[in-house]
Amino acid sequence: MSAVPKQFLHDAVTAKKASIAPFAASEKIYLGGSRPGIRVPMRKISQSDTPSAQGAEKNPDVYVYDTSGPYTDPALAIDLRKGLPAIRQQWIEERRDTEQLSGPSSEYGRLRQVDEQLADMRFEHIRAPRRAKTGVNVTQMHYARQGIVTPEMEFIAIRENQKLHAVKEQWQNQHPGESFGASIPEFITPEFVRDEVARGRAIIPANINHPESEPMIIGRNFLVKINCNLGNSSVSSSIEEEVEKMLWSIRWGGDTVMDLSTGKNIHETREWIVRNSPVPIGTVPIYQALEKVNGKAEDLTWEIFRDTLIEQAEQGVDYFTIHAGIRLAHIPLTAKRTTGIVSRGGSIMAKWCLSHHRESFLYTHFEDICEIMKAYDISFSLGDGLRPGSIADANDAAQFAELETLGELTKIAWKHDVQVMIEGPGHVPMHMIKANMEKQLAVCDEAPFYTLGPLTTDIAPGYDHITSAIGAAMIGWYGTAMLCYVTPKEHLGLPNKQDVRDGIVAYKIAAHAADLAKGHPGAQLRDNALSKARFEFRWADQFNLSLDPEKALEFHDETLPQEGAKQAHFCSMCGPHFCSMKITQDVRDYARQQGLAEAEALEKGMEEMSAEFLKLGGEVYQRS
Amino acid sequence: MSAVPKQFLHDAVTAKKASIAPFAASEKIYLGGSRPGIRVPMRKISQSDTPSAQGAEKNPDVYVYDTSGPYTDPALAIDLRKGLPAIRQQWIEERRDTEQLSGPSSEYGRLRQVDEQLADMRFEHIRAPRRAKTGVNVTQMHYARQGIVTPEMEFIAIRENQKLHAVKEQWQNQHPGESFGASIPEFITPEFVRDEVARGRAIIPANINHPESEPMIIGRNFLVKINCNLGNSSVSSSIEEEVEKMLWSIRWGGDTVMDLSTGKNIHETREWIVRNSPVPIGTVPIYQALEKVNGKAEDLTWEIFRDTLIEQAEQGVDYFTIHAGIRLAHIPLTAKRTTGIVSRGGSIMAKWCLSHHRESFLYTHFEDICEIMKAYDISFSLGDGLRPGSIADANDAAQFAELETLGELTKIAWKHDVQVMIEGPGHVPMHMIKANMEKQLAVCDEAPFYTLGPLTTDIAPGYDHITSAIGAAMIGWYGTAMLCYVTPKEHLGLPNKQDVRDGIVAYKIAAHAADLAKGHPGAQLRDNALSKARFEFRWADQFNLSLDPEKALEFHDETLPQEGAKQAHFCSMCGPHFCSMKITQDVRDYARQQGLAEAEALEKGMEEMSAEFLKLGGEVYQRS
Repeated sequence: MSAVPKQFLHDAVTAKKASIAPFAASEKIYLGGSRPGIRVPMRKISQSDTPSAQGAEKNPDVYVYDTSGPYTDPALAIDLRKGLPAIRQQWIEERRDTEQLSGPSSEYGRLRQVDEQLADMRFEHIRAPRRAKTGVNVTQMHYARQGIVTPEMEFIAIRENQKLHAVKEQWQNQHPGESFGASIPEFITPEFVRDEVARGRAIIPANINHPESEPMIIGRNFLVKINCNLGNSSVSSSIEEEVEKMLWSIRWGGDTVMDLSTGKNIHETREWIVRNSPVPIGTVPIYQALEKVNGKAEDLTWEIFRDTLIEQAEQGVDYFTIHAGIRLAHIPLTAKRTTGIVSRGGSIMAKWCLSHHRESFLYTHFEDICEIMKAYDISFSLGDGLRPGSIADANDAAQFAELETLGELTKIAWKHDVQVMIEGPGHVPMHMIKANMEKQLAVCDEAPFYTLGPLTTDIAPGYDHITSAIGAAMIGWYGTAMLCYVTPKEHLGLPNKQDVRDGIVAYKIAAHAADLAKGHPGAQLRDNALSKARFEFRWADQFNLSLDPEKALEFHDETLPQEGAKQAHFCSMCGPHFCSMKITQDVRDYARQQGLAEAEALEKGMEEMSAEFLKLGGEVYQRS
Repeated sequence: MSAVPKQFLHDAVTAKKASIAPFAASEKIYLGGSRPGIRVPMRKISQSDTPSAQGAEKNPDVYVYDTSGPYTDPALAIDLRKGLPAIRQQWIEERRDTEQLSGPSSEYGRLRQVDEQLADMRFEHIRAPRRAKTGVNVTQMHYARQGIVTPEMEFIAIRENQKLHAVKEQWQNQHPGESFGASIPEFITPEFVRDEVARGRAIIPANINHPESEPMIIGRNFLVKINCNLGNSSVSSSIEEEVEKMLWSIRWGGDTVMDLSTGKNIHETREWIVRNSPVPIGTVPIYQALEKVNGKAEDLTWEIFRDTLIEQAEQGVDYFTIHAGIRLAHIPLTAKRTTGIVSRGGSIMAKWCLSHHRESFLYTHFEDICEIMKAYDISFSLGDGLRPGSIADANDAAQFAELETLGELTKIAWKHDVQVMIEGPGHVPMHMIKANMEKQLAVCDEAPFYTLGPLTTDIAPGYDHITSAIGAAMIGWYGTAMLCYVTPKEHLGLPNKQDVRDGIVAYKIAAHAADLAKGHPGAQLRDNALSKARFEFRWADQFNLSLDPEKALEFHDETLPQEGAKQAHFCSMCGPHFCSMKITQDVRDYARQQGLAEAEALEKGMEEMSAEFLKLGGEVYQRS
């Protein structure tokens, strides 16, 4: 693994990189809250006018949820070496329930800090960690249950509303949805956010040691979110590549990022990512713990794992995947499977359990883990170590036995006021997806569900962002709160930047399709605006309103590169003399020429023809 | 438009082109029927052995449905200039109900035949057309209703069964599906095919002038099919490109191909495509008719349209999209739409209706059209000219009014024993898709539904193969018989070869996901085989069994190019020391070392621990 190249830092600092350039016709705006510190970022997309006989008709700005952080704000200086501004610092300090430590309290964290060989790759401005004062609980769930509305909660309410209520006329006629029992309010108040977090139906991943993060929420009564995975492995990748993937992830719409590194220098890579990430970061601590015992699962101990949790907690990881649901009794249930145990964490713990003939230390020390989580406000992502790795294994006894244990663990975590979401499958055919959602809601009391896809068939390696986007859209509609993306490289290799982009856009599609189907207030506004632009041949507006404006423009220009084509009232599919959109406009113009409203013109025509209708065919069709 | 380049022909003839090269580890085999002429093509994929302590375990060959035609059979000489062998010729002649014409009976067909300027692009071996003897009906539906099982029907029964009953042990435990009232038999007999065609629940697009086509069927009780569109426009493409796209389409799994050309030399382009296509070809004749009147919809006449139908019928087009369902009274229902009329055919007919204040000649001459269809056995694809072009317009009054008219027209076509399928939307949010299928089944008496997507959101131009694959998979599950693909270029430009490939694979995924969800007999076999190969690190087998082996291999090699990596018991995602699949095998090996069956080993462990379970946590979890 190389050090962090100067050129990379230079490019990023000078904001020349495609990965952090602002989008066309877009402006970063901030909505204020009840106090100066609250500045909620949004992306404003401006549109061109619609030309018409009565003079130009203005088209309204469209505001969209923005995960890209300070990078797309030209007003801010970007310096990856210094990291992002700590926007939550003051809120955290004001609560006076945490203390500043002199340095890392994990053994491993201290070792890495003084290792000379790491000097050239170590992040320069490591902040000394904070921790809850002894015996104090600093989770957003704990505050919520005390009836406290935190600035994080207010920030989230403003963010989720997306400024939609100023423009209600643009979406009030959207299709009513089917939400399968979700309770989505038309307007989200800070109090609603508090209440959802208090009852465990939503989580706010917000480690006190990640003050750079812009608060976001995961719950079935909010916008469906997506997670992107990155991370090196022992055969590939560097710190530079992983930071690049993080920037790329948030640019295209990743709501959270999981660092799944299993290679060298995991600690240093993570520091670079967390310090520069405006979105919550998740990890699977057992991966790093396993590196510490040279890949020998049976050598893992609670002490090594505990030190790893504290090491990562003090770097600012916002949620931990913990595979505590795998019990010794579940493992025989996988013996007859087509693909056994495909979760890495699950496999590690299964091997440990067998080697020691014991329940795992994750399960037996679960309450000890809760104590750590509440001292930093880290959320659980209870791992589905027994998720099916093939269509054949979908919804089997092993999978559902683990899910029931996750339900039990959820109640324990809630007893400690620790936030929890539940991980889900996997590989599931379409007709068996709903049963997963229903069982999860039943046994986990509406704790947010966080699923990987599911993939709806096994036969398309190279295209699993698509096999899984189908399942993800459906399970998102049924009630899943966050969708973990799958890239085209799934099962085949480590994703590169382009794979990350393809995976994210596929999942933004799935998440938005789910919001539309649930009837999320205002979800249809962007579809309406883009379709109107398309119908009016406002090509640039169509591109700018899309999930990936650069790709849309690139594809359009492959056939009609000329700038003029972007004003043209036709496209390459039909050509100038033969375009359905154009003809529809002609239809309307024709009616106007008649000096009649369109409907009248048509009725007039129909009256004239009414007699003929009967003669020509009316009868025939009544007879048949 | 250029002539057909010699180099293209040379490359194709010598079968050097990627578009017609056989797939790795695959062999083209033919299954016989009740007579010598019936040779049903399939692709046999062979697998490597599974190494084990007890010696190598053989893995069975996997047979898959093969749309690629003679091109992937190395034993056959390919010459695009001569076209494909006429495998159905004898069957058609034996029926003695058709006559060989001396030449084209359409005015336009005759004109093109003698035009000197077209010499360099004209297909050399144009066959004189056949037509039914006067007053005779030659449709597969007519034969079916006479109780006749045609060779086409027997061919289809063998093809749909996919040789699955020889290997039933490989899929008999597949998940039972949910077919929403479909009647899918476990074994498909020629008599079942006949019965489904007789009752109009399935169609066999098989023009007597396209004897090169390998019989296939479209119906909800058979495998879900996909259609691929190609065709030039006035701003782009050539005969070479279109023939290439056809070859590319059938290679990746297109079951039918629609030639939507709207540019120059439509007639010559079509001849090249039909003569070289082993799959049914569909067209939208109104597109060419419009070219004949220089794009002026109002100048269209029944006579021009009729001549176009005969011109295309005698070239061998297997199904026609006819937008006869647009009635004058429907048009005002589109006036308030966000995107008006987006179907080209629909727009043309709407404009004609308004200009003339008349019902369209498609509607008033519908029975005359039936007379032409039954003289060549062309199937109707009743066009949804009023399909929604945006989420906002989904399931509206205009769309459903037209669908009801299509139901009436279906009954008229059936009165003539003419085969019919019904085209469907379009843009529809997930929760409104099922209503489309249910209404279509109700008003069209289970005539096959053939949908474009539907797209589940409007906001992802550049990725509409994905927005629509989601909707396509769902509506396929609900009962749609054929899915019309959408490429990434939809709304933006004309698809190139790569776009065609991306669109097809996305739709093969949707169709197969639908077959799995419907519980189609044997559908899970390929998933099971590929997943077993994946679990056993048989990388080459995993690639060869996938929908796009070349893409899978390419992605794998991006991270681990070495040949050795394809035998490796790990992959780039985890690296050698840390792979869930590997660990699962270790788990099983560990059990074996104990000299115990795995389950026993685990039980033993659990017994030892049983006391400890209670002490360590059992209680805690009972309490909570």
